[in-house]
Amino acid sequence: MIFNDVLENVKLYEAGKPIELLVRQYGIKENDIIKLASNENPYGTSLVVQNKIKSIVQNMFRYPDDSMYELKKSLSLKFNVNDDNIIIGCGSDQVLDFCVKAKCAYSSNVIMSNTTFAMYEIYSNQVGANILKTKDDLHNLEQFKMLYKKYGADIIFLCLPNNPLGECLNRSDVYDFLDEIDDNTLVIVDGAYQEYASFKDNSKKIDPYDLISKYNNTIYLGTFSKAYGLGGMRIGYGIACENIINSLLKLRPPFNITNLSLQAAIEVLKDQSFVDDCISKNFVQMKRYEDYVIDKGFCFIDSYTNFITIKFDDTIKSCYIFKKLLENGIIVRNLKSYGINAIRVTIGRDFENTKFFNVLDNILLKISSKL
Amino acid sequence: MIFNDVLENVKLYEAGKPIELLVRQYGIKENDIIKLASNENPYGTSLVVQNKIKSIVQNMFRYPDDSMYELKKSLSLKFNVNDDNIIIGCGSDQVLDFCVKAKCAYSSNVIMSNTTFAMYEIYSNQVGANILKTKDDLHNLEQFKMLYKKYGADIIFLCLPNNPLGECLNRSDVYDFLDEIDDNTLVIVDGAYQEYASFKDNSKKIDPYDLISKYNNTIYLGTFSKAYGLGGMRIGYGIACENIINSLLKLRPPFNITNLSLQAAIEVLKDQSFVDDCISKNFVQMKRYEDYVIDKGFCFIDSYTNFITIKFDDTIKSCYIFKKLLENGIIVRNLKSYGINAIRVTIGRDFENTKFFNVLDNILLKISSKL
Repeated sequence: MIFNDVLENVKLYEAGKPIELLVRQYGIKENDIIKLASNENPYGTSLVVQNKIKSIVQNMFRYPDDSMYELKKSLSLKFNVNDDNIIIGCGSDQVLDFCVKAKCAYSSNVIMSNTTFAMYEIYSNQVGANILKTKDDLHNLEQFKMLYKKYGADIIFLCLPNNPLGECLNRSDVYDFLDEIDDNTLVIVDGAYQEYASFKDNSKKIDPYDLISKYNNTIYLGTFSKAYGLGGMRIGYGIACENIINSLLKLRPPFNITNLSLQAAIEVLKDQSFVDDCISKNFVQMKRYEDYVIDKGFCFIDSYTNFITIKFDDTIKSCYIFKKLLENGIIVRNLKSYGINAIRVTIGRDFENTKFFNVLDNILLKISSKL
Repeated sequence: MIFNDVLENVKLYEAGKPIELLVRQYGIKENDIIKLASNENPYGTSLVVQNKIKSIVQNMFRYPDDSMYELKKSLSLKFNVNDDNIIIGCGSDQVLDFCVKAKCAYSSNVIMSNTTFAMYEIYSNQVGANILKTKDDLHNLEQFKMLYKKYGADIIFLCLPNNPLGECLNRSDVYDFLDEIDDNTLVIVDGAYQEYASFKDNSKKIDPYDLISKYNNTIYLGTFSKAYGLGGMRIGYGIACENIINSLLKLRPPFNITNLSLQAAIEVLKDQSFVDDCISKNFVQMKRYEDYVIDKGFCFIDSYTNFITIKFDDTIKSCYIFKKLLENGIIVRNLKSYGINAIRVTIGRDFENTKFFNVLDNILLKISSKL
């Protein structure tokens, strides 16, 4: 059976290792495992949401309300936009997919940072687009601009803040950049971690309403998977002008969100104080990581998210650290596959982070005793 | 903003009206509404599943195990295939989508019955494929063969049994047809309602293992949305030879299933007696519909599913019946959009069906008094 040629260039996404895998492969007990690999909210899911979901499990046989009326209403109130400016996806991932499939075809150009969310490249490869990457790993708008002037683009991906590195462009710089982009180039502003960036530094904050009012060629992506504590429920959204949303809706499969997920998202939007509290705790714990890394003489990238990227010098291999942490029941992300000698660690709860520091201390001790 | 041309031909899927809509639009109380529109299992979700989900709501913040190890294991045991023969989709819909995107491109040919599951056409239009339909509404393999001999095809869609009409081809006829299809044509055997067909008549039964062992160009699609009572949880699967599955996996986005959905599917597979019991009740209730329709002098299509298609004569318009039922809190599907003067009614519970008969009686009485 022969399939479309473009599939040959498509790589599979490498997900953070799930807890279930460590239980199966290493025989470690579930309760002894600390997962700091997928930037989930370590404080879990709001109790309000948990109780709501418990109370509606009898509805699982019913298809969801495919108009997603109630969730769109909640989001439109939160962001001061109309229902018609919103599309809901199975994670904001799916909205990315809609954007690429709606806008790109074989040999379209797309522009992205050299090290950024892997799905930009994967979805673009699925349609056979040309992928143009900046030289720098961190977002460098001058380099974006050079590529754009030289080659043009159907889509530009901006990850604000950037996953997996953690840096975040200033809003004013982003707006200056957008001023120079043609109306027919779709600019995707991926705000999966925006709640963290906005909390840490208001100059990073991108307001979806402000963005799409000023630039009708942009789409803002948000998610319930990170700060909102619903990574397992697969819900994200895109906010854009009606023309863009209507085109993307043509690619949305019916019932792309479970009915429990819809309710979970609606409920957590009512429990904003839970989310705010988690974000606040995140940066208290982040400080511990920064201090630890400085103390050890490593480098970190200043992070506007709920994770931190720790870079090692040549004497230490991230693959080794990753593997040793895993054997000790701690799952992080190895950035080797991005060509960087670093690990990305989700900022966990206090006790999880303490354990991470202790385990890493022991690993480093063994390395130095061998040197 | 200009999007890909092909989108202009894409129509939106018309979902069965949700209960929430009637509450909003007609002010009918939720408990007074009977939904017989989306072929959900009217007996609901297995209690075993409900209890399991209640016990794991605290995990909603965690991303799912993207290998779907446990669910694949359960399905591979059920169907006597390997894990590598299975792909899991957000409903079997999503596997359809993968098939079309992996195999078709602009001006590919796809063949389907004149009246069949609407998503075949929608997904095919998304890539700009040529859609070749048989003349007959019911599956007619002679007509499929004629189209295939004349035009060839990248994909052939067989809906066994067929939604929205309910008829089902015999396995032996399907196999005879498959004998004449080229190895490089993907034949999709959509078995969303196979559990019902197999129960009613063993000669309709398609066993995935048998199918893919004999024909390496086929994929069998199954779902948890119908007999398994999990329509809201969005889980379906495809079973095919490894070569096909590996190509489709390149289009599967990570985390396309919620973690609660994975657990729900795993649990319901342990509660097969619940499913069998629902299917058995379905056909007891189906008989009541057949008797009713005969009594009124209408026609029905012999159905191998959990729904029945009732055709009206020229004196009665399906649009009118649909609307009047809606006003009385009963939601069915109007098949007018398929060009057929008929309604499709999901076989409900005993009391739901009784109410349907009574309400339809009253509507018909008013029509006849006007004639």
